[in-house]
Amino acid sequence: MNVVVLSGGGGGARFARGVYDVVGPGELTVIGNVGDDLEFLGLHVSPDLDSLLYTLAGLLDEGRRWGRAGETWNALAAAGEWGGETWFRLGDRDLGLHLVRSEALRSGRSLAEVTAELVRRAGVSARIVPATNDRLRTHVLTETGRVSFQEWFVGRGHEDEVVAIEYEGAEAASPAPGVVEAIEEADAVLLAPSNPFLSIGPIVAVPGIRTALERRTVRCVAVSPLIGGAAVTGPLARMLSRMSGGTAPRQVAGCYTGLIDALVIDEADVPAEADVPLVVDSTLMADRAAERRVAEVALEAACA
Amino acid sequence: MNVVVLSGGGGGARFARGVYDVVGPGELTVIGNVGDDLEFLGLHVSPDLDSLLYTLAGLLDEGRRWGRAGETWNALAAAGEWGGETWFRLGDRDLGLHLVRSEALRSGRSLAEVTAELVRRAGVSARIVPATNDRLRTHVLTETGRVSFQEWFVGRGHEDEVVAIEYEGAEAASPAPGVVEAIEEADAVLLAPSNPFLSIGPIVAVPGIRTALERRTVRCVAVSPLIGGAAVTGPLARMLSRMSGGTAPRQVAGCYTGLIDALVIDEADVPAEADVPLVVDSTLMADRAAERRVAEVALEAACA
Repeated sequence: MNVVVLSGGGGGARFARGVYDVVGPGELTVIGNVGDDLEFLGLHVSPDLDSLLYTLAGLLDEGRRWGRAGETWNALAAAGEWGGETWFRLGDRDLGLHLVRSEALRSGRSLAEVTAELVRRAGVSARIVPATNDRLRTHVLTETGRVSFQEWFVGRGHEDEVVAIEYEGAEAASPAPGVVEAIEEADAVLLAPSNPFLSIGPIVAVPGIRTALERRTVRCVAVSPLIGGAAVTGPLARMLSRMSGGTAPRQVAGCYTGLIDALVIDEADVPAEADVPLVVDSTLMADRAAERRVAEVALEAACA
Repeated sequence: MNVVVLSGGGGGARFARGVYDVVGPGELTVIGNVGDDLEFLGLHVSPDLDSLLYTLAGLLDEGRRWGRAGETWNALAAAGEWGGETWFRLGDRDLGLHLVRSEALRSGRSLAEVTAELVRRAGVSARIVPATNDRLRTHVLTETGRVSFQEWFVGRGHEDEVVAIEYEGAEAASPAPGVVEAIEEADAVLLAPSNPFLSIGPIVAVPGIRTALERRTVRCVAVSPLIGGAAVTGPLARMLSRMSGGTAPRQVAGCYTGLIDALVIDEADVPAEADVPLVVDSTLMADRAAERRVAEVALEAACA
């Protein structure tokens, strides 16, 4: 069976690993968010694609839940000594990837080509495909102005209240090669428990991807990133409150109107109602077994 | 007094540190070789300028005698895992500098500007100036072909016999701002005990620098990099034998015809004759005190 997962990094990547663990080799295509991408110290950084890669490849720092295990931080410290920016946390091992990718991109290869090559080298038997090879950047409008996603999220510790989100470049962006085909050939489409505004939003803001999802002939199931109305990590609950008027399953489902056939929610969020059927289970991914279980629940709902 | 030192990295940088230690703050200008510069993993690397910076700033790994103390190597290892080149040894701390410099160069700043800023940040009260802001690359002609300096030196462990040296871009290169002025205003000019072909050669191959040296009104003294006809490190002795017919002071002085007024040589190289006066002393720089002593000998010869 062919499964497509739309995902950001973090919890989304761990959900994708759950799916990777339960489907057969070569059956999973992860479409990764690139709205968080940034140029930092002259390098192209794709945090969500990297989280997906590191997580599926077993390179993730499982304690920190981002970046690579066994990481050191000497290059960034030195860059700071020489006057370089240090607000974005790039570890030394992580940097090795950014150097290789940035050089490949400058030589004219596409982000999708580079990503496929990295996945191949990591020995991962899933595909990780960026939503688009085109420039797509998430911007956050706060009461004091418009900043890039990373500036708001990392630079300011996502403290400023979010008024709106903009996906710069999305309207003009084409899906990366293989994205639409993967959706068309999928037996199930899953939206990972990532932030609907910041992780899934930029992906489905690409018109070709949105259209492909709207025309799906198979079921699409989202997993809610909220547990008991709160985000496991990150600023989602505050964003949902402000922009959707609440933090219940209804508001999460409302982010995906027309795109999903069911929403998997946590037991802590019932009783609940929404415009799509709700599937209730435990969605906390405390370990690999829990990741697999949440993946199975989502797959079962998608194949119902 | 104003002192100008022309230098490569390594032993040249340690000689420059000796001069730095014995002259007053702000009195030293080091003109650094850029013929060894390379683009590696998409970064601009200036090994000799960096050796000079690290050495004068007290950041040098004194055991290895290149790169930074307390270095780690994780970024390069990771780059290798992802298919990047690893033949040039870039440490993580070192990388921080290359990132900052590469970004600055891409934003349109000159190598001299960036270098001056790095020197300022390191708290070094000498000037380190690249010979030129223009592209100048040393190539080595071997019996099997023409390769870049670093490819030959690091990539092939400088094993291939050298037939000739080419300074690509030198004829068209202009001295970096301040280089000619520093030579004109100097009370003494010193050529560090660097490789005449590979370190000093590229500098004096810049026509404006060569002319300024030829027109000097003060003395210019070179320190021979040979001790007992052998190089302390590196491939110089073999190169001198092949290209100049011997490894005596005469051949070293022959590399600097018209440019120097005296050559400081080691006691192990006497008796000797050359076309310029020879100054005999111990030139092995085993420690900081020895670096200062060799600097004093050279300065004394230049002020004679």
